Amino acid sequence: MSNIYDCIVAGSGLSGLVAARNLSRLGYRVLVIEAQNRIGGRMYGEYLPSGQWIDRGGQWVGPTQDRFLALLDEYNIRRFPTFSEGKKVLLFNGQRHEFDGFFQGFYEGEAPNVSEEEWNDAIKAWESFDSLAQSLPETYPFGNNDYKALDDRTFAQWIEENTHTDFGKWYFSYMCRAVGFLGPTEPGEVSLLHLLWGHKSASQGEHPEAELLHGGAGQIPAKIVEELGDDHIRIGEPVIHINHDDDGVEVHTTKAKYSGKYAVVAMPPHLAGRITYNPPMPSLRQQLTQRVPMGTCAKLLISYDRPFWREKGLAGIGLGNCQWIELCADSSDPETGVGVIATFVVGDRYKKWCVMSQVERRSGVLSDLANYFGEEALSPATYDEVDWPAEQWVGGGYAGFMPPGVWTTFGQALITPVGRIYWAGTEMAERWAGFFDGAIRTGEAAANSIANLL
Amino acid sequence: MSNIYDCIVAGSGLSGLVAARNLSRLGYRVLVIEAQNRIGGRMYGEYLPSGQWIDRGGQWVGPTQDRFLALLDEYNIRRFPTFSEGKKVLLFNGQRHEFDGFFQGFYEGEAPNVSEEEWNDAIKAWESFDSLAQSLPETYPFGNNDYKALDDRTFAQWIEENTHTDFGKWYFSYMCRAVGFLGPTEPGEVSLLHLLWGHKSASQGEHPEAELLHGGAGQIPAKIVEELGDDHIRIGEPVIHINHDDDGVEVHTTKAKYSGKYAVVAMPPHLAGRITYNPPMPSLRQQLTQRVPMGTCAKLLISYDRPFWREKGLAGIGLGNCQWIELCADSSDPETGVGVIATFVVGDRYKKWCVMSQVERRSGVLSDLANYFGEEALSPATYDEVDWPAEQWVGGGYAGFMPPGVWTTFGQALITPVGRIYWAGTEMAERWAGFFDGAIRTGEAAANSIANLL
Repeated sequence: MSNIYDCIVAGSGLSGLVAARNLSRLGYRVLVIEAQNRIGGRMYGEYLPSGQWIDRGGQWVGPTQDRFLALLDEYNIRRFPTFSEGKKVLLFNGQRHEFDGFFQGFYEGEAPNVSEEEWNDAIKAWESFDSLAQSLPETYPFGNNDYKALDDRTFAQWIEENTHTDFGKWYFSYMCRAVGFLGPTEPGEVSLLHLLWGHKSASQGEHPEAELLHGGAGQIPAKIVEELGDDHIRIGEPVIHINHDDDGVEVHTTKAKYSGKYAVVAMPPHLAGRITYNPPMPSLRQQLTQRVPMGTCAKLLISYDRPFWREKGLAGIGLGNCQWIELCADSSDPETGVGVIATFVVGDRYKKWCVMSQVERRSGVLSDLANYFGEEALSPATYDEVDWPAEQWVGGGYAGFMPPGVWTTFGQALITPVGRIYWAGTEMAERWAGFFDGAIRTGEAAANSIANLL
Repeated sequence: MSNIYDCIVAGSGLSGLVAARNLSRLGYRVLVIEAQNRIGGRMYGEYLPSGQWIDRGGQWVGPTQDRFLALLDEYNIRRFPTFSEGKKVLLFNGQRHEFDGFFQGFYEGEAPNVSEEEWNDAIKAWESFDSLAQSLPETYPFGNNDYKALDDRTFAQWIEENTHTDFGKWYFSYMCRAVGFLGPTEPGEVSLLHLLWGHKSASQGEHPEAELLHGGAGQIPAKIVEELGDDHIRIGEPVIHINHDDDGVEVHTTKAKYSGKYAVVAMPPHLAGRITYNPPMPSLRQQLTQRVPMGTCAKLLISYDRPFWREKGLAGIGLGNCQWIELCADSSDPETGVGVIATFVVGDRYKKWCVMSQVERRSGVLSDLANYFGEEALSPATYDEVDWPAEQWVGGGYAGFMPPGVWTTFGQALITPVGRIYWAGTEMAERWAGFFDGAIRTGEAAANSIANLL
């Protein structure tokens, strides 16, 4: 057949685009097929009328994210430090406190205004958590029976057993909901082992949100496609079925079918599990893809004509157990002069929030922001909601996570290729899973494996 | 359009067939669409050359399963008591004991040969478990914040905290793997609340395996389709997409599209989540269908020219912590004279077993049966494996279950119709979920709801 591709990539998120581009650079004929009418998956942004960009998906980069930094250099994307000068705001149980420190899986500077008992409770539990995490090896958390006891329990249970104050309990559940460790999700849904592994392999202590990108991360997919060539991508074509045998793959979409030597399925595990395969996937792979749900998280981007909080000596970072907003951060580009707050509604808060009217949702979010930063927050220039769990070609944010028992029982199937089908996507990264850096690593690895066979 | 159906049912398992049949009886025009090349879903059997039937899916019925009993009466399907005369065999930590009692979520008769401390440990913990379960109301376990603490933890953790002997710990993990409570699964994967709810709403104490059916349960789907009429069913047509609005539904398969007034999606939640919808499902429904994995269970049916164990005074019921087989039961039809043992390989045992060769798998299973019932077990007339987790239009057995946090956060979305789309399937039953009786209840309910609107 004349239309045989060397590799067909299903999914145009960052991992899929990197896999396709790397194979294309080696001279192989590739095709990327995307279900949505746009490229980029969770790497997706837009420009506001003010000229400021917003990233509807991921946005940050940190100093140890080597692969993402290398990609940014290749495409000449300039970075700038995330603004964090000034005081942070903690709103805890209705009390507001500005303080000159930070705590997010590490702590530095001044402690917030909780009692010494509460602060010590959180710090002591953090030390236990950190030391338990550091005891894991730097490899995927499966294949070792010692992990079973950590995987058989929820993070909620660990919190219950290791903290005794309101603040201590909130701090760790906030870490699970608002910060990294994949998910984000309520601590009752996630395996303790998964959280420990998340902290070990993608630590907040390495400052993964240290920098932002002029123009935003959302500009990157188009740059990769430009290099790849428009004729090597199809959008608006969900892949519904893949035939595969010793000779190659045949990828069926809602519109056409394509033949190739290899395939990379580059999407979150639950979406890879929506495709049918002939022959079917091995049973452990089928069971795995039923067991890696996406986090429960909407992203909000609120812009103001200027970053007014800076005038008050505030860093634009707020955290606390508010009604909707547990974490928000300054995402303003200094070259535009516009003020942007990026924030999230997560877990049980999301569950209540998503069924309210748009007017109520907006009003609730802005009211929390006003408590953090002042009345000016009530009058934004723009207000954008990104309801990731409602997007059927993603299904949640930031990433898929492991409920109890999944890593140790089914983890191997996350990464093992099946015949000529390889997997990519940030969920399966051994380093920086859930981040762009992890996505790149899995796309590179899939391309390398296939290039070695072509 | 002339081809407008009153209701299109996606899925020809028991719940879907009952929904279609009930609407058809009311004079409505229905169509059932099935992905596989056969009907019946998990209600599926065959006849052996000996004339004995085997049920590759479910097979039993109990005295309080009103809806299933009514269905059996309607189609004149005769029942007989599951054979249980004689001694049971316990194989625990290599010790074999025949005893005149039983314990499976209840106990009766003689205790097995474990130490008094071990037996008391199991009994005492069982009483705690039972009393905790009875404290739940007889409604779905969501919508009440009191449930949160039970849902935030795994059953493994409950076992760890409530038992202190090897036997006690094994007994409860065996209950989770081998017996009811949906799943079946390892206790580290499942919510404590889910197990409690399973025991409350579908209790082993009500003897759901009391009777078997002459000819097997697998004969039932064809009888329902016969009533429905062959022209009202399409097989080998996976439903891939459903458009829906205020006027009706448009169901797209791999081969055609069909218009109707209403749809019933009658399949396990994870399969319902593989269909795309326009407009997309509400976010909480999307998140739910990522979070209800199927149990990890293969079923085995081994037949002998006669039920040889009975000659030794054995009931054909074996239980214990063997390498592969934790529970097996006599499923012989007295009218055929053939001996049949039905058994299962579950959870971590399945994970190791499914990657062995067929020769090794068979040899392992028969060797365990020989330990239970004697050397005759090594020479069966037939040996059938049903690898439910490998079947891509089912994905596991017996049913889908809830990992921690799912009932209380997303449970409502399991049952709530979306526009003109209704759900059916045993997983969503309020009574006898995971059993045929539960499947019938959900099919009847969907038909009733739609009939009230037509």
